[in-house]
Order: sequence, then C-alpha cells, then structure tokens
Amino acid sequence: MKKGVMRPGHVQIRVLDLDEAVKHYVDLLGLIEMDRDDQGRVYLKAWTEVDKFSVVLREADQPGMDFMGFKCLSEEVVDQLRTELVEFGCQVEDVPAGELNSCGRRVRFVAPTGHAFELFATKEQTGKWGVGNHNPEAWPRDLKGMKATRFDHCLLYGPNLDRTWDLFRDVLGFDLAEQVVTPDGKRVAQFLTASMKAHDVAFIDHPEPGRFHHASFYLETWENVLRAADLISMTDTSIDIGPTRHGLTHGQTIYFFDPSGNRNEVFAGGDYHYPDHEPVTWDADKLGKAIFYHDCQLNERFLTALT
Amino acid sequence: MKKGVMRPGHVQIRVLDLDEAVKHYVDLLGLIEMDRDDQGRVYLKAWTEVDKFSVVLREADQPGMDFMGFKCLSEEVVDQLRTELVEFGCQVEDVPAGELNSCGRRVRFVAPTGHAFELFATKEQTGKWGVGNHNPEAWPRDLKGMKATRFDHCLLYGPNLDRTWDLFRDVLGFDLAEQVVTPDGKRVAQFLTASMKAHDVAFIDHPEPGRFHHASFYLETWENVLRAADLISMTDTSIDIGPTRHGLTHGQTIYFFDPSGNRNEVFAGGDYHYPDHEPVTWDADKLGKAIFYHDCQLNERFLTALT
Amino acid sequence: MKKGVMRPGHVQIRVLDLDEAVKHYVDLLGLIEMDRDDQGRVYLKAWTEVDKFSVVLREADQPGMDFMGFKCLSEEVVDQLRTELVEFGCQVEDVPAGELNSCGRRVRFVAPTGHAFELFATKEQTGKWGVGNHNPEAWPRDLKGMKATRFDHCLLYGPNLDRTWDLFRDVLGFDLAEQVVTPDGKRVAQFLTASMKAHDVAFIDHPEPGRFHHASFYLETWENVLRAADLISMTDTSIDIGPTRHGLTHGQTIYFFDPSGNRNEVFAGGDYHYPDHEPVTWDADKLGKAIFYHDCQLNERFLTALT
Amino acid sequence: MKKGVMRPGHVQIRVLDLDEAVKHYVDLLGLIEMDRDDQGRVYLKAWTEVDKFSVVLREADQPGMDFMGFKCLSEEVVDQLRTELVEFGCQVEDVPAGELNSCGRRVRFVAPTGHAFELFATKEQTGKWGVGNHNPEAWPRDLKGMKATRFDHCLLYGPNLDRTWDLFRDVLGFDLAEQVVTPDGKRVAQFLTASMKAHDVAFIDHPEPGRFHHASFYLETWENVLRAADLISMTDTSIDIGPTRHGLTHGQTIYFFDPSGNRNEVFAGGDYHYPDHEPVTWDADKLGKAIFYHDCQLNERFLTALT
Repeated sequence: MKKGVMRPGHVQIRVLDLDEAVKHYVDLLGLIEMDRDDQGRVYLKAWTEVDKFSVVLREADQPGMDFMGFKCLSEEVVDQLRTELVEFGCQVEDVPAGELNSCGRRVRFVAPTGHAFELFATKEQTGKWGVGNHNPEAWPRDLKGMKATRFDHCLLYGPNLDRTWDLFRDVLGFDLAEQVVTPDGKRVAQFLTASMKAHDVAFIDHPEPGRFHHASFYLETWENVLRAADLISMTDTSIDIGPTRHGLTHGQTIYFFDPSGNRNEVFAGGDYHYPDHEPVTWDADKLGKAIFYHDCQLNERFLTALT
Repeated sequence: MKKGVMRPGHVQIRVLDLDEAVKHYVDLLGLIEMDRDDQGRVYLKAWTEVDKFSVVLREADQPGMDFMGFKCLSEEVVDQLRTELVEFGCQVEDVPAGELNSCGRRVRFVAPTGHAFELFATKEQTGKWGVGNHNPEAWPRDLKGMKATRFDHCLLYGPNLDRTWDLFRDVLGFDLAEQVVTPDGKRVAQFLTASMKAHDVAFIDHPEPGRFHHASFYLETWENVLRAADLISMTDTSIDIGPTRHGLTHGQTIYFFDPSGNRNEVFAGGDYHYPDHEPVTWDADKLGKAIFYHDCQLNERFLTALT
Repeated sequence: MKKGVMRPGHVQIRVLDLDEAVKHYVDLLGLIEMDRDDQGRVYLKAWTEVDKFSVVLREADQPGMDFMGFKCLSEEVVDQLRTELVEFGCQVEDVPAGELNSCGRRVRFVAPTGHAFELFATKEQTGKWGVGNHNPEAWPRDLKGMKATRFDHCLLYGPNLDRTWDLFRDVLGFDLAEQVVTPDGKRVAQFLTASMKAHDVAFIDHPEPGRFHHASFYLETWENVLRAADLISMTDTSIDIGPTRHGLTHGQTIYFFDPSGNRNEVFAGGDYHYPDHEPVTWDADKLGKAIFYHDCQLNERFLTALT
Repeated sequence: MKKGVMRPGHVQIRVLDLDEAVKHYVDLLGLIEMDRDDQGRVYLKAWTEVDKFSVVLREADQPGMDFMGFKCLSEEVVDQLRTELVEFGCQVEDVPAGELNSCGRRVRFVAPTGHAFELFATKEQTGKWGVGNHNPEAWPRDLKGMKATRFDHCLLYGPNLDRTWDLFRDVLGFDLAEQVVTPDGKRVAQFLTASMKAHDVAFIDHPEPGRFHHASFYLETWENVLRAADLISMTDTSIDIGPTRHGLTHGQTIYFFDPSGNRNEVFAGGDYHYPDHEPVTWDADKLGKAIFYHDCQLNERFLTALT
C-alpha cells in the first residue's frame, strides 16, 4: 500500500450465457448475488468482503476479462495516481460514478500487457455477508458450494512484462513478490502485490496481449480445496488440474472452468509478503515445479487455454 | 473376520537396491526398521502396528511382490483354513516358523490371479512403536517423512477374478466391499475386506498373472496427504498421480514409486464396511471417476506400470 | 465380530420435548428424519448408515437412554446369543418385529450395569443417504449442521463392570480395547468393541445403575470438530467441553447437551483395534489425561451430569 | 502501513532460567536459535521470517516483556516517526545500532499503557530458514515441535487505552481492527494492525501499567493447533486454555505458559483487515464469547495471570 492502492476490488468477466454463469459462480463457487443493472450485468460478492460486490458478470459473444479494478485508500489517491498514469504514458479513461451500480468514479487504463485496469476509492459497503461486524459469528450458516471467501487475484497473459512491472511498481506502488527468470535474465512471470498477499495480480509472458488466464478465489483450508474438487466432480464441471500445490507462493489449489471457458482457481494457504522481502525467484527451467509443485510438469492446457 | 482372518499382516517386496529401498521406506514413508535376517532381508513396521513387522524388503533382480500375508485369530484357524484351501484346489506350501524372523509358521498358497498369499497366526508383538499401550501418548515425536501409520492393503493385477473371489469369500471369509462391473456383467475390479476397512486386498482384471500394482499405507489426514505430496517433490521421488480422491472407497490418495519401480500409495479417509453392506458398484464406463474421482480419467501409466 | 455381533444398530433416547429434540438432532447434528410411529417416536439416521435408522427419540418425563441395540450377522446369531444370555443368567425379553418400524424382532436384556440392550439382525436397508451404492458420490450436498456420519457408541455409568465385561466378552464376543485401572487392580472404565472401532460401548464404574453419559456420533475430520464447536456457539447450545482430544482412544472430540439434558459427543479420528491387540491401559491416577488429553483434568460436570 | 510501520519485528522476553527457556521456545515452539550476545541474550526466529531474529530471551529475576519492536520501511520513516513521537509527548530513547546483534539503531518509547516499544528499519536478513528465496521448497524438513511460522503479535494489559490508540493511529498509522466496548462506550480491548493481519498488537484495559499477557506465534492450520495441544500434554507444559476459537479475530488458538510463567499463544486462521474496514465491535457483556468463542466464558486465569 505504498502508493495507496489497497487490493483487488473487482473483476468484470464476460460470459456466454448469463444464467449458466450465475449458477456456476453462485451455486458452485458460493458467491452471493448482490445486484443486477440495466445492462443486465450481475454483481456478486464473496462472504468475507465488506464491499458490496467484487465480481461482475457480463453476457457477451466472447469469454474473457473486461477489466480488473483496484480499490484505493481515498479519492485523493485516485487523483494522484491518475496524474502519474498519464505521466507514465498511459491513456486514461474516466468512468463516471454509477456506471457500475453502487460504485464511485473509476479511472481506467490499459497496461503494456494489453489488459484494462481501473482505480477507484468509493463503493457501497454492505459488510461481511451474513455476519456483519457487531459480535460477528465465525461464519454464516447458509453458504453454498465451495464457500469462497474472497476474490483474491487474477493471472493474466500478455507481452511487455518489464514495462508493466515499471508501471505497477513506480506508479501504483506494488512489490514484486515472486518471479520466474530465464538463464539470460528475462522475467517470464511476475507476481505483484500491494500488501501482504503473495499476489494481487500476476502476469505471464505471452505474445498475444490482453489474454485472461484465471480469476482466483480464496478458501479457508486445504480441506476446503478437497471439497471444492469433490464438487467439481459432482457437478460435472470441467476441471483443469488439482488439487495440488504451487511452487510459486506455495498455495494449495485447484483449477476448473466456468461454462463459458473462463478458468477459475480456488486456493488456500500460501506465503505472505512484506515490502522488505526480496522477491522469490524460480528458474525458468524449473517452471513445471514452480507452477505445479507435486507433478513438476505443466499440462499444455494450462499454458494455452486462455480467454 | 467371519472365518478368522483378521488383517493384512505383511508384504514382502522385491527391490533392486536394498540401501536405496530402505532409505525410501524409512526416510520417506516413515516406516521403522525393526530387524534384518541372514538372507539380508530388512523388516519394517509402521508405528501404530502392534506386530513386530509388516513390510519385508528383499533385494532381487526384478521388482514386485513376493507374497502378502494375512494374520489369523489363532493357529487353529490357520489349520482349518489350510484344509479348506486344499479342498478348494489350492496347492499349499508350509513355511516353517522362523523363515521370517520372529514369525510363526505360514501356510502359503497361490490365488487364481497368480499371486502368492500366506496365512499365519503368530508373530512377535512389540507394541505400538514409541507409545506402547500403557498411558500411551497420542503419537511418537520422532516419526520421519510421511509418518505412515500402517500397511493397509495391496492392489494386484491378474486373471480369474471370479474364481479368486470364490476363494476369498468361501475359504477366507472376506466380503466384497466394492466392485467395477461391465455392461455385460463382468467384474473387472474387486475390493475385498476381512473387517471394517474398505479393502484389505483388491484385484484388477489383467491378462498377465501375478502382477503387483501397489502396496498402500494409511495416513491420518488429508493434510498428511499434502505433506506426503510435498515430500515426494522435495525428494525428487517419482510421482504417479495425486493428491486426489478415489471414487471407489472415496479415500484421499497419492501414488508414487519406490526406487525399484514398485508403486506405493499413501491415503487417508475412505469408507467403512460391515458384512451386511451391499457391495458398492461402479459401472465400467465410469472407471475413470471410480479410480480418480476428480480428474475422471485414468492415466495410461496407472493401468500399465506394474511390477 | 467373534460371536456375530456387528455394531451398534440403534439407541432410543428419551427427550422432554420432541419438537425441540428433533430440531437439535436434525438441524444441529445433521441426522436425517426417516420415520415416525404410532407412539409418536421419531426415527433418525446418519448419512453413511445403510440401515433405515439408528436413533429413536421418545418423548418422556425424564431424559436418558431406553436401550441400545446391536445388529447381528443373522437371525441364527440372535437365536444362539439369546440362549447364551439366558445361560449367563440374564432375563431376556422378546420384542416382536414391528415394535420399532421397519425393524425385525429384538432380544432385550439388562446388563449388570443396569442398562437395557438389544440384539437384532433384521432392519430395512435404505442405503447410504443421498449417495446409495451405485457410482456413489463422495458425500451428499444437502447435509445439515455437523454432518454426523454415523451413530458410533454410547458411554454408560453403572456398577458391576467386571460382570458386565464377562457378559460382553463371553456371550457377545466383544474385545476389551481400553481400560482404566486403579493401583489395586480395579477396572473403573472399560471400552468394548465388536470390531475395529476403539469402542462400540463403554462403561464407567458408578454406584447408580443404568445411567446414561452420552451418545456419540462420528465426524470425518478434526476440522469438522471445529465446525461443530462453532455451531454449538452459534446456536446457543449448552457445551460441556471441547474441542479437545481424549487420551483413551485418542479421538478428537467435543461434548454438548441436547435440550433435554442428554449429553452428545461428536468426534473424529481415534485408534483402531484388532482382536490380537492387548488392551490399552490407563492408570486411574492419570484419569484426567485419559479423558481430556490436553487439559489433563476432569471437570466435575463430566463425572456427575448423567441422565 | 500508512505511516511506514510494517510489522512486529521482535519482542524481548524476560525468563528466569535461560536454558529452560531456550528448550521451551526451540524444542516445543519450534523457533530456531540464531545468535547469542555478550549479555547472554539468546536470539531466535521462526522459519518463515526473513529477518535474522524476532524473539530475544533475557535472563532476569522477573518474567515479562522488556519491549516489542516494530520494523519500518526505512530509516527515513524511523526519523519521521521519532519526530512525531516527541511531538505527541513521548519520551524517546535512542538505542544505538548493535545493542541488539545484527540490528540497526532503534527508537524506543513508552506507550500510555506503560509498555516499551521500539521502531527500527535495519536488521540483518538471513532469509526464510531452510528454504531461502531461490526455488524454495514448501517447508523445511527439520522443524521441531509446533513448527511456529512467525512471531505474530503481543497482547498487553495496561491503562489509558484511548490515549494509546491515539498514539498508534496518529503517529504510527495503525488501524483499529477489533474492539470490545462497554454499554457506556468505553473501549476495554483494542486490536491494532499496521497491515492485513487482524492484530499486530492488542491492549486490554487494566489498572496496572506495563503488564504482559502473551506473545503469539502463527501456525499454518487448525491441525497444527491440535498437534501443538498434543505436544503441550506430552511435555507436561502448563496449559492455559484450548484448543478453541476466538470470537475476536476468529483465530483458532491454544494458550500455554513458558517455564517462567510468560503466556504463549499459537494460533491459525483468523480474519484479515484492510484500512477501509469498519472496526469489528464486540459488546463487553459478550466478552466471554469474544475471547473464547466456544465456551463463551472466561477463566479467571486468563484475566489475572500476567507477567
């Protein structure tokens, strides 16, 4: 939070069939439907989040990610960062308050990897779902499916990782928590964080700009990862890989696909980061172990199935 | 235990290099070395077992299983079952007391699948390792590696499953806990138990007789399966598949190979069985889900890598 | 199962208010209501049990246990054990088929501790609830509350432990899995099992006959014990003690009370037993640690709150 | 981290017998001995910490806490905060670099509760113990005892909570994550954080200044809390209470005492905090549930056993 960016605040995901998508994210992941808007978009949140929503589903012809938004400490921070984004050379778009229901104005820009990001500081706070903040119980009794606790991060594929790291470091105040580096020193994966999490957003080097690898949601325990895997099987959901552990961040994870082909991750555990931590570095020739710590080899699908 | 057979009592495994094998089973699986004999065989046990040993390693030119032994309630039971084995048509070999250190006489026979089994009733009891049975602590503090708690079962590949089931049911008093059946009614997998465990021995239909798929060891929890997977990675041990869950028995599992190519399983959880339970039946066209509940597909190696 | 007794098959519990009790056992423990009868009794089961019911609630003026029933392998076993019970000196009552819905005839007797037990062999089998035995999923998605998996055992307080042990050993074929013994050799607690479980029924020495300490239900994991504890708090249920571990059996446990004052336990883990295992012995001067392994001291309520 | 304070960096604890204390913190908690100094102090760290040490043990006639130090982003931050501390009215002591081995200069002050705190920015970084930051394994294989992962926070008893909150908020940039408030609006407990953790330091209202309630260490899982409880029993360590869950922060916890009577906590899980989160508020009449979520009542010892 060196520059006032707090956390991933939302992600807008394109889905081919809205009803199927809502069923997937609500009944299987356990997100809670909070709102719908005039454009037909559906607003979801995970139960521990205090803001009104963190996932927006938009029906479209192509799956993928429209944008990912970071919540900032204040509107002043948004103003300041807007200025610095322009100075950095980003084209900036001002999205007025209310374009997303219950959300203030957003400053949108495109990173050198080709992905759209937003900064905002204002969103209606509805509190932790089902428990609130007055004598709160440990968890709400009526959660569904995987009981995802929060939208955690996105992993994105695109070019220009160095320039993107410059942007996130110098303008937005992120740290480089983990990286994968080739023998000749090229960074091919970078995991960036604005606070203590091992990653708030991560990038993998890829020739095509703006590709979406996955949106990730946090679970409380490795046992919940097992339950998630069981539910994937029970519901005939398309699985990618897992349960397993990552080498990078050491999180315990499983990957699967929403009905539109967007990849989801749910995970538990994982390392923490402070600004004085040296980046964790994995050698590119150990990429298999860095991604899938147990199998130590990548499946082709993980590298190429993008939306 | 209808006919007095209690449990898997031991398995003798052939290994190519004894020192490497001991390191694998002791440092990685966490078995305890208890003895060695004149033939150079090494005797191991898991910590919750009361008998002196349950795994015997024998150096040989080919990996695989020499035999699996079942412990019976009494010598009288061994006598009675010996008679019934002969009546059933089995050729029976009497192995004298002391052929295995600290073990009484054994009655050896070959099942129609081509695997050698033994019945015995007498083995030195050294008690639960590190805790004993007087005011016992919850677990010993100096366990190694995966901290396997017991030798649990073997999975064996061979022909003549029906006749083998007749033998285990009628002579040895086992139950059929779980099975996989083809559309035309052929049983291609059978999981047999002498007590409450989901399987004490299991067979998969296979044209070659006497093949060894894996020896399995029990862990306390799904978290221990994760730790086992981590250790497999840390020690560059050859992994087969996992962590995952089985459809059959619903155990939580991971497979890997000893340095000689013998497959090992460690698992936790899983269903229980009583004699009045109808067998659980999986359709052969769901074999993928029956074996690997999350991925729902078999890897070729699981079907063909045998010793 | 040396004499053909398989497992605890049911327990009939007296409750002061039937509606409150059903709410407790269904919504909190997660048992499933299966039937009601002309007497107004309610029949419940836990989801992994294949028989139609395992808990019967009867409204009465006093809480406590009416009887505990053991399921036997066959009607022939029931006949044989009936004869041996009479020879042992027990007064035997024949309860006709249908007295409990969907249950065959039962042979009832009173143990020297003053508790009523029953033997039966026939009960309608409805299969594992929500999953069945044909390509069964790992667990049903719509379980409630603590998601208890089975009725596991009862702990009973009364006199004449030695004579009761004679009865369970010689007539019913039980093993003594664990015991607490005073310096002068008096057994003040005995944990008895008919199969691999650490206890199917347990007795504590107590001057008053026929007292009910608790009925116990099995959970899958220590994490489920935490969830159970959380639910006890959320529902303002009266807690006794836990989460903790027992020294005896090493199970992971929590105790609480139903609205009528009957104690319930839910637990996970714990040791296994085979007939050739020497009994585990705890010294009476370590009774605190034997019962509550972490605190190492008994609370007065645990010793005196009985129904 | 609004003002550049990152995290709890160290705590210096007074112990009556150094050898016994080292044995406790190393063999039982699993901290690693890193250094000793001319004064005889012993320096320990937990394995995930990148700095060289986080716990300093000093032999003395009275147990308790000498001081707790917070690590800041830079020396400039320390300079700035030193100025603001003086402006706030704190008496400030400059402790020269090297007074603690491998640690830079520290700025010491006494909070209105009577506790000594320090700010520092420089300490030798030895990296995560046993794994480092280059292709790091998931965990080191040779950890001892409870395998504590980090020094997490302290809970301190003293007066003047309001003024202390002013200091931590205005000068040091902490957030109020959780609080306990009486019906007339008096804050009797305040949990303060500099980042995402539910607390980096917490205060309970108490007439005597400068009392030490406990130092807390983080564990990975609830299963590790069970193992910690088991170890407490196995080693005859004095237990306070647990395993249980807190209402405040919802962490899963167990408390026990070092041989000098200083209370330790190890815990897992728990809520996270961001600067835009409203404080969680517990009513003082629910203090029992706020502290011990399952039992819902305080034990006297928890309130009065202080060092």
